[in-house]
Amino acid sequence: MSVEIISSAQNPRIKHLLALQQKSSLRRQEGLFVVEGRRELEHCIHAGMDIECIYCLDPDTVGDVSYNIVQVSPNVYERIAYRGSTEGLIAVIRSPQPRTLESLLLQKGRGVNGQPLFVVLERVEKPGNLGAVLRSADASQATGVIVCDPLTDLYNPNLIRSSLGAVFTVPTVVCNSEQCITFLKQNGIQILTAQLQDSRLYYDTPMTSPTAIVMGTESTGLTDVWRMAADAHIRIPMLGQLDSLNVSVSAAILLFEAVRQRHLSCMQH
Amino acid sequence: MSVEIISSAQNPRIKHLLALQQKSSLRRQEGLFVVEGRRELEHCIHAGMDIECIYCLDPDTVGDVSYNIVQVSPNVYERIAYRGSTEGLIAVIRSPQPRTLESLLLQKGRGVNGQPLFVVLERVEKPGNLGAVLRSADASQATGVIVCDPLTDLYNPNLIRSSLGAVFTVPTVVCNSEQCITFLKQNGIQILTAQLQDSRLYYDTPMTSPTAIVMGTESTGLTDVWRMAADAHIRIPMLGQLDSLNVSVSAAILLFEAVRQRHLSCMQH
Repeated sequence: MSVEIISSAQNPRIKHLLALQQKSSLRRQEGLFVVEGRRELEHCIHAGMDIECIYCLDPDTVGDVSYNIVQVSPNVYERIAYRGSTEGLIAVIRSPQPRTLESLLLQKGRGVNGQPLFVVLERVEKPGNLGAVLRSADASQATGVIVCDPLTDLYNPNLIRSSLGAVFTVPTVVCNSEQCITFLKQNGIQILTAQLQDSRLYYDTPMTSPTAIVMGTESTGLTDVWRMAADAHIRIPMLGQLDSLNVSVSAAILLFEAVRQRHLSCMQH
Repeated sequence: MSVEIISSAQNPRIKHLLALQQKSSLRRQEGLFVVEGRRELEHCIHAGMDIECIYCLDPDTVGDVSYNIVQVSPNVYERIAYRGSTEGLIAVIRSPQPRTLESLLLQKGRGVNGQPLFVVLERVEKPGNLGAVLRSADASQATGVIVCDPLTDLYNPNLIRSSLGAVFTVPTVVCNSEQCITFLKQNGIQILTAQLQDSRLYYDTPMTSPTAIVMGTESTGLTDVWRMAADAHIRIPMLGQLDSLNVSVSAAILLFEAVRQRHLSCMQH
């Protein structure tokens, strides 16, 4: 196997890789993004994504020689790696065709009891929060995550990292709020908005039928369009002195309440 | 009101403040720590802690003039502040006497139904994780958080920040695992260890009686001493492709299941 070796951080390919990590506009324009770490790369491959190139410290660690592999020197690797200690694998991946809302309903065997279970995030800003929500969506076998009017792109390196690769395992759609509401209403999916005002306790709210759990930002909450569209407003009781939970923590509590109710209902039938 | 003004980052008091932020050994040695932000400072004051000094951009924003206030110039503030945009308040606080395990049982009105509800974290390493757990413990009105053999101190700036001040609102004790197990056993508090092996689903596990939810690190889990001491092993079902949840997300799911069960049981009586 003949492998190209790069030992200068000034190499145009390395500069391009760094630019892809930093600029969402370049990622969008070129349809490429960067993933770091063996596990994350495996999730990409499992999801059927196209690997453009793998940069590594030691080509022997890649295993599959059919990939386009570039060996880099430790000083170059240090430049391109986010993590302190890593497995020495960074890949450039071709972004898949964006999913449509309709495609989410073709997912079978998700949602615990087979009924759709979505998380909808409106105007999410922090890539780390969206990544953490994706991780909980994977664990709870949600049908999908719908990101409305986001202020981050799905292939932000912080998002990929904080999701531990769940961005590749959970069906995810980006759209605007109006499109999402129309989709949910047309398909008979109940809309539960997480908000403190005029709301009932989340665990008093049935979630075994097709359900979308909708959450806004920590600072400003949901916009009126969602509050109006809701079938019910739900809240997690805030029993202490602080007035909010992290959005990813709230999403996990609500998703696993749906899991609990659905498991219970499956056992009773 | 006469207020000292500091305009050089080389000022010994500023150097001392920076050292307190960076060095846990100095915090321990001097019994001091640093808190940033108005809300966090209010939680400190509400908890009865002693304010040594408040550094601020504008003394008028402090309000209460009985404090020892130092005005700093914007360039100095930028050096000592963690956050980008802040309220311009940073305070040096005297660490309170460490709590004892026994003092936790004197907390009244917590645990939702009045029965003790603890989170125990073994060997927690990341200050941000412990901070996030404290935030969920505040929201769920847990009786307290017990930190066994931690690799961080309670007054790490990242911990205070990620807890949004919950480190001052939630009774917290640091001890070793043996002390904690003895305390829990002597007081008839059931020990539920979060682990994947030999475990039952968390929502099939009663948590209305006195309960401690015990969690290890994401990488290595709990040590054998805890597995042996457990009354039950519980798990959050991992239904997707990833094999773990963040420790703070797991803690929140388990704590709010206890809240749910306890509310339900209160309503039935």
